[in-house]
Amino acid sequence: MKDTITSAKVLVEALPYIQKYFNKTVVIKYGGNAMVNDKLKMAVMKDIVLLALVGIKVVLIHGGGPEISTMLNIMGKESKFIDGLRYTDEETAEVAAMVLAGKVNKNLVSLIQQNNGKAIGLCGLDGGMLQVEKLQGEVDLGFVGDIKKVEAAPITMALKNGFIPVVATVGADKDGQTYNINADTAAAAIAGALKAEKLILMTDVRGLLREKEDEDTLIHKVRVDEVPGLVSSGILSGGMIPKIQSCVDGIKSGIKEAVIIDGRIEHSILIELFSDEGIGTLLY
Amino acid sequence: MKDTITSAKVLVEALPYIQKYFNKTVVIKYGGNAMVNDKLKMAVMKDIVLLALVGIKVVLIHGGGPEISTMLNIMGKESKFIDGLRYTDEETAEVAAMVLAGKVNKNLVSLIQQNNGKAIGLCGLDGGMLQVEKLQGEVDLGFVGDIKKVEAAPITMALKNGFIPVVATVGADKDGQTYNINADTAAAAIAGALKAEKLILMTDVRGLLREKEDEDTLIHKVRVDEVPGLVSSGILSGGMIPKIQSCVDGIKSGIKEAVIIDGRIEHSILIELFSDEGIGTLLY
Amino acid sequence: MKDTITSAKVLVEALPYIQKYFNKTVVIKYGGNAMVNDKLKMAVMKDIVLLALVGIKVVLIHGGGPEISTMLNIMGKESKFIDGLRYTDEETAEVAAMVLAGKVNKNLVSLIQQNNGKAIGLCGLDGGMLQVEKLQGEVDLGFVGDIKKVEAAPITMALKNGFIPVVATVGADKDGQTYNINADTAAAAIAGALKAEKLILMTDVRGLLREKEDEDTLIHKVRVDEVPGLVSSGILSGGMIPKIQSCVDGIKSGIKEAVIIDGRIEHSILIELFSDEGIGTLLY
Amino acid sequence: MKDTITSAKVLVEALPYIQKYFNKTVVIKYGGNAMVNDKLKMAVMKDIVLLALVGIKVVLIHGGGPEISTMLNIMGKESKFIDGLRYTDEETAEVAAMVLAGKVNKNLVSLIQQNNGKAIGLCGLDGGMLQVEKLQGEVDLGFVGDIKKVEAAPITMALKNGFIPVVATVGADKDGQTYNINADTAAAAIAGALKAEKLILMTDVRGLLREKEDEDTLIHKVRVDEVPGLVSSGILSGGMIPKIQSCVDGIKSGIKEAVIIDGRIEHSILIELFSDEGIGTLLY
Amino acid sequence: MKDTITSAKVLVEALPYIQKYFNKTVVIKYGGNAMVNDKLKMAVMKDIVLLALVGIKVVLIHGGGPEISTMLNIMGKESKFIDGLRYTDEETAEVAAMVLAGKVNKNLVSLIQQNNGKAIGLCGLDGGMLQVEKLQGEVDLGFVGDIKKVEAAPITMALKNGFIPVVATVGADKDGQTYNINADTAAAAIAGALKAEKLILMTDVRGLLREKEDEDTLIHKVRVDEVPGLVSSGILSGGMIPKIQSCVDGIKSGIKEAVIIDGRIEHSILIELFSDEGIGTLLY
Amino acid sequence: MKDTITSAKVLVEALPYIQKYFNKTVVIKYGGNAMVNDKLKMAVMKDIVLLALVGIKVVLIHGGGPEISTMLNIMGKESKFIDGLRYTDEETAEVAAMVLAGKVNKNLVSLIQQNNGKAIGLCGLDGGMLQVEKLQGEVDLGFVGDIKKVEAAPITMALKNGFIPVVATVGADKDGQTYNINADTAAAAIAGALKAEKLILMTDVRGLLREKEDEDTLIHKVRVDEVPGLVSSGILSGGMIPKIQSCVDGIKSGIKEAVIIDGRIEHSILIELFSDEGIGTLLY
Repeated sequence: MKDTITSAKVLVEALPYIQKYFNKTVVIKYGGNAMVNDKLKMAVMKDIVLLALVGIKVVLIHGGGPEISTMLNIMGKESKFIDGLRYTDEETAEVAAMVLAGKVNKNLVSLIQQNNGKAIGLCGLDGGMLQVEKLQGEVDLGFVGDIKKVEAAPITMALKNGFIPVVATVGADKDGQTYNINADTAAAAIAGALKAEKLILMTDVRGLLREKEDEDTLIHKVRVDEVPGLVSSGILSGGMIPKIQSCVDGIKSGIKEAVIIDGRIEHSILIELFSDEGIGTLLY
Repeated sequence: MKDTITSAKVLVEALPYIQKYFNKTVVIKYGGNAMVNDKLKMAVMKDIVLLALVGIKVVLIHGGGPEISTMLNIMGKESKFIDGLRYTDEETAEVAAMVLAGKVNKNLVSLIQQNNGKAIGLCGLDGGMLQVEKLQGEVDLGFVGDIKKVEAAPITMALKNGFIPVVATVGADKDGQTYNINADTAAAAIAGALKAEKLILMTDVRGLLREKEDEDTLIHKVRVDEVPGLVSSGILSGGMIPKIQSCVDGIKSGIKEAVIIDGRIEHSILIELFSDEGIGTLLY
Repeated sequence: MKDTITSAKVLVEALPYIQKYFNKTVVIKYGGNAMVNDKLKMAVMKDIVLLALVGIKVVLIHGGGPEISTMLNIMGKESKFIDGLRYTDEETAEVAAMVLAGKVNKNLVSLIQQNNGKAIGLCGLDGGMLQVEKLQGEVDLGFVGDIKKVEAAPITMALKNGFIPVVATVGADKDGQTYNINADTAAAAIAGALKAEKLILMTDVRGLLREKEDEDTLIHKVRVDEVPGLVSSGILSGGMIPKIQSCVDGIKSGIKEAVIIDGRIEHSILIELFSDEGIGTLLY
Repeated sequence: MKDTITSAKVLVEALPYIQKYFNKTVVIKYGGNAMVNDKLKMAVMKDIVLLALVGIKVVLIHGGGPEISTMLNIMGKESKFIDGLRYTDEETAEVAAMVLAGKVNKNLVSLIQQNNGKAIGLCGLDGGMLQVEKLQGEVDLGFVGDIKKVEAAPITMALKNGFIPVVATVGADKDGQTYNINADTAAAAIAGALKAEKLILMTDVRGLLREKEDEDTLIHKVRVDEVPGLVSSGILSGGMIPKIQSCVDGIKSGIKEAVIIDGRIEHSILIELFSDEGIGTLLY
Repeated sequence: MKDTITSAKVLVEALPYIQKYFNKTVVIKYGGNAMVNDKLKMAVMKDIVLLALVGIKVVLIHGGGPEISTMLNIMGKESKFIDGLRYTDEETAEVAAMVLAGKVNKNLVSLIQQNNGKAIGLCGLDGGMLQVEKLQGEVDLGFVGDIKKVEAAPITMALKNGFIPVVATVGADKDGQTYNINADTAAAAIAGALKAEKLILMTDVRGLLREKEDEDTLIHKVRVDEVPGLVSSGILSGGMIPKIQSCVDGIKSGIKEAVIIDGRIEHSILIELFSDEGIGTLLY
Repeated sequence: MKDTITSAKVLVEALPYIQKYFNKTVVIKYGGNAMVNDKLKMAVMKDIVLLALVGIKVVLIHGGGPEISTMLNIMGKESKFIDGLRYTDEETAEVAAMVLAGKVNKNLVSLIQQNNGKAIGLCGLDGGMLQVEKLQGEVDLGFVGDIKKVEAAPITMALKNGFIPVVATVGADKDGQTYNINADTAAAAIAGALKAEKLILMTDVRGLLREKEDEDTLIHKVRVDEVPGLVSSGILSGGMIPKIQSCVDGIKSGIKEAVIIDGRIEHSILIELFSDEGIGTLLY
């Protein structure tokens, strides 16, 4: 009996957080370890079903690099790299689209359904959701897309009808050519189009650390205007830069706040949303 | 961190129960110790706000005998008893209506609002909700009402607009005369009119016990057709008879199931709804 | 037959007035003699039911000083006065809330229902409708509230669902402490929040008189910017000042016009609304 | 002041009648003297606008024999009669349609609009409302239609959008041929299709009289099953028979009750609806 | 089989044009030869039913000069002319209203219904749609109306409920006096009030010709600001001026574009809407 | 000009067929040559976009055997056959799901979008749409599903929001195991659940022929109760049997009629729907 009373207290303590996000949109970029480890994966699915049930509009965005690599391997397709970055030729773009939209995406949908959630699997081609042009950068990476327009109707339709939209980050240009899209960027663009309350980027690190390697120096909050200073001081560097940049872009296009959390921690999403301090580095 | 992960797990474990009652109506008869003890009272309020937030349609029905007695005392009004039962003369009926609808009811509304819930306080006079005639029994108890019709529109309007309806069990007859109504009976009648998923009667006992005084002999489940046998065997007796009878009547008029729980246990409502076995005696 | 034809003509003559207020909101502050005299009371109830029926959105706001005094007397509670004004201590505030929301309010609801109208009784605590702070004035009058926010949702919900909202002017501050509120002020604040077409204040005088004691000198119309001049000239004085000030405040916050009428005249509300000249002093 | 109070009392006395018909459909067959006499006509228009305003769904059905005759005269068209009944040849049918739908109908619409009502003029061709076949009788009367189907959508659309539908009783067969239709019959058929609360047939007599010529012997109420007896006893005879028969047919197809009133009395519609006894002969 | 495949290809080629006008409003001023010639008339009806079916909101506006003249002739009414323009006296205005609203209008409705379309016939009196004053010009032409206000509610109600509104250009002034209105002007005013995608004026000429008599010099597109130049150069002259002016006025009040087409060509409406170049002279 | 008039006539001739299917549901099983040949494929896409545009609710169901085989080949996965039928092991089921839902499905969506249609790609896992058990037959074919329940909500949601649902016939059992499903069977089950007006099965034959090899002996119509006779007479045999059986099953579960058409003919869908006789063999 004691245990159940304790449990009830935990539920009741979640009240103010549920109230805070009630009827608000939360976009989750799912990836990294949390997508590979089965126990973590199942915890994420349960978190998401719970959030949807208590009235939060959850949108799940995912990539799926490892699954794409595995499939390319099986197909005997060699990967080409330029300056350490994978070059996406047309065939690779098509395989990626197939794996993301047909395998990873539908598996996630299936897992949510098994947990008695209701989900619809979409990709950027559905309803012309992600309209891209070829990404122009210093290096030509092939069929990697730069999002020019987000048509949010398929997502809002799903949310309005009680479905959790699960979105594979594949897009097309005006000629119908398929492109692969960076999932962090896509999540930020979609969250911006939805004017989301929060964008959550799941990663495999604790967040932004003031001193590398020391997780106790986690920076809990960063104002958007502090970002340049963090870069010049070297605290923000490497792979964290594009992630933080996605958050900054999202906030500029209408997201209220964005947070980078450690997907290696079980139930990291719930802990982030249902505690005062959160669990990662918040951009606002 | 460990604690927060544990908390998150508790939340996730509540998932199937939330799903079970999602968008269903649960009518709670609030009374007894849970209404007198401040800590219990606050726990009940939090339970109710949480239930409403996760998409359960909660209706709170209450009486308030002690507050009525206190007011009658202050007013210097002597109470008349017949065979140990209070006789409700016209003045008493009016004082009761005032205390229930103006004091107890609005206090509960205020407490829910303070917990960031949204509540509307109603009584059986609002919208002609509880239409009564004088209760005909062996003994004339005065202005005690027998419900002839429940006009549920004010309650369903409140639920549809996101308010928790809090209802004081006062009614009127065709001539507008005010009557007091037994709160258990009223809760069952309202739950029946709403075709509620569950009626919860809060009491100050563990439930129906096979052997009096031994709480370990709690009967968890009782089929409606087993009730006469329980009476004849003496297991069901005394004040429990009318409570169980209210449950039986409610089930016959459309409630799916009814349960008698021990309001002295903190968060008894949550525990009842969010566990497999429940906490009290279930009628079905 | 002649009589019925005459009656029909009266009905038809009301047409343009009904058209004028059709689907508009009219807030009525009910009080004074019209609330004490049974014949007048019944006429007011019928007027209100008629207005609601012909498509006017009627909101009834009431205080109830005499009933509060009577209850305090019965309870043996002595009243404290400061400079002739009643001091509202905590107990008085609670008794007032109980009497207004539980007795006066529900009696009015019951009377409307008996006249085949549909009414819902509310107070400022319901849905957090009237959010107050302690009124700051030259003299400390205790728990008298100054309205900081009107949350109109409970009222508009009732109107939308065909109910006449009857509102007792009790409010609460952030800590849930109950306050009494001046009913004229509350009616103006609510009418302002509803952007009402008209605010009607029922009083026990003919209106604003150019020469005191001479009812033939009734001033029919006053522009808001004429009010200061009327005060400095002494025409507007005494208890009329706060009433007129409520009207002025209401107009500034969005009411189209406000009128002070003589509640001692039977059907004064109908006469005011359904005649060209009206019956009292109109502020615009 | 006394007069205005009296007027207010008249309004209040109308309350229960307005409540009785609120949101119900009343179909009025307009014709006879009330359509010729300008004072009566204006009174009918005002009655109708008032009924619509107080929430009654009024449908106005009209013929227009005199106006058709006048036009035929002007056009130099000679009328053919068989056994005293006008024979409607193709040209006459077309002139009738034009006069009814283009002159009488639109004049009524215009009068309602001038009284600040909202009206839409329709005929049986609009939306395929009145689908007829050639009336088969002992005598061939030409293009006189027998209603086979009522498509009520244009009428219900108008009512739902706050317009008073005014309907000229012209119809068409499957080949698009235009037919004239008896207005009493059409009104009954439309009222039946609408499941109207009441069908009112305006005539130039007091109603059904027990003794011809003696208006004091007006029969106030007739049960449908009493009609055959009234015919065999000779009380019901002549032109009254088809009118009563239309009422009986209408009741059989879903109207709650039908009444024959004296259109020569000013405001006869209001008096019928807004008094206990009514003014004419009620079929039920 | 070959033929049916060819037919299917034609349908498919219409796709982009249907998509272009899908859910948009197209107002058609119907008149001239297309209204007199039975084959053309039937083709117009079919075009309109098709447009409505594929999701275009079609509004049909019509005059009917020839039918009015015929009726005046039959009635033996002599017409008065001033400077070659017909003078509309009161009787003429009434006959015109009757013929337009009761004969021409309802015939069109009937034809659409026979083609399985759904139509409602309206005139400017219905719902106070066309509110006019007496047209003030150099010459007094009698009861010819100048539109002061378009009340579009009856039209939008019809469109929303799946009916094709057919509108006779008759209006009324404040006193309910009936006026005749130029149909081109009325069509432009209605299209402007509806913020139509396109106004189509059907005429008996190919459009605006650079060289009179030479249809090969058809001007396909004219910018609104080119109109004055075309007048001063003499290319735009005579009866074309008021037509073009109606288009210009319409565009200024919110129509996207207007086009003058040759109603003598079968299916000219479809050809205009469902081809790249159109068939007439487009104003934009 | 002559050509455009002819084209317009073709459009107008389609009118009655469009009216026949307006707002009705048509389920198309897409497959065979029409899915392989690029010209045919584009014609199908255009047909579908046109149907959706003219107000027909089109649902596109597809398999994709050839694409699955190609992928299995590339992956070096050998296929196992039992009695000439492919055995679907777990890995094959997963590859099939990925290819169907991620490649074939999204390509179709993309093609529709390029033709300015609006499409959403779904599979049987989305929203738990196709709930299957292992197909029980004489031979164990592995993970081939037998549909036990169709949850049509994702499809009806798409239709209601103006999207063409494109459905890959993949399903899951209670444990979330993925199954491949015969596309004809799935199309019939979905059409049945939607109570479709018509099920169209695209094949690579002319239809059911009375004499094999002679297309002139095409049987245009078959009543459901004639099917057994056609089997026993040998006219219906081989691969046609399961196709016809799917049609029969569909009709029994609520489809109005089903038709087998020759997908090798360009625009076969349009020709079937927009001609009196149709193009294939109709089951009813």
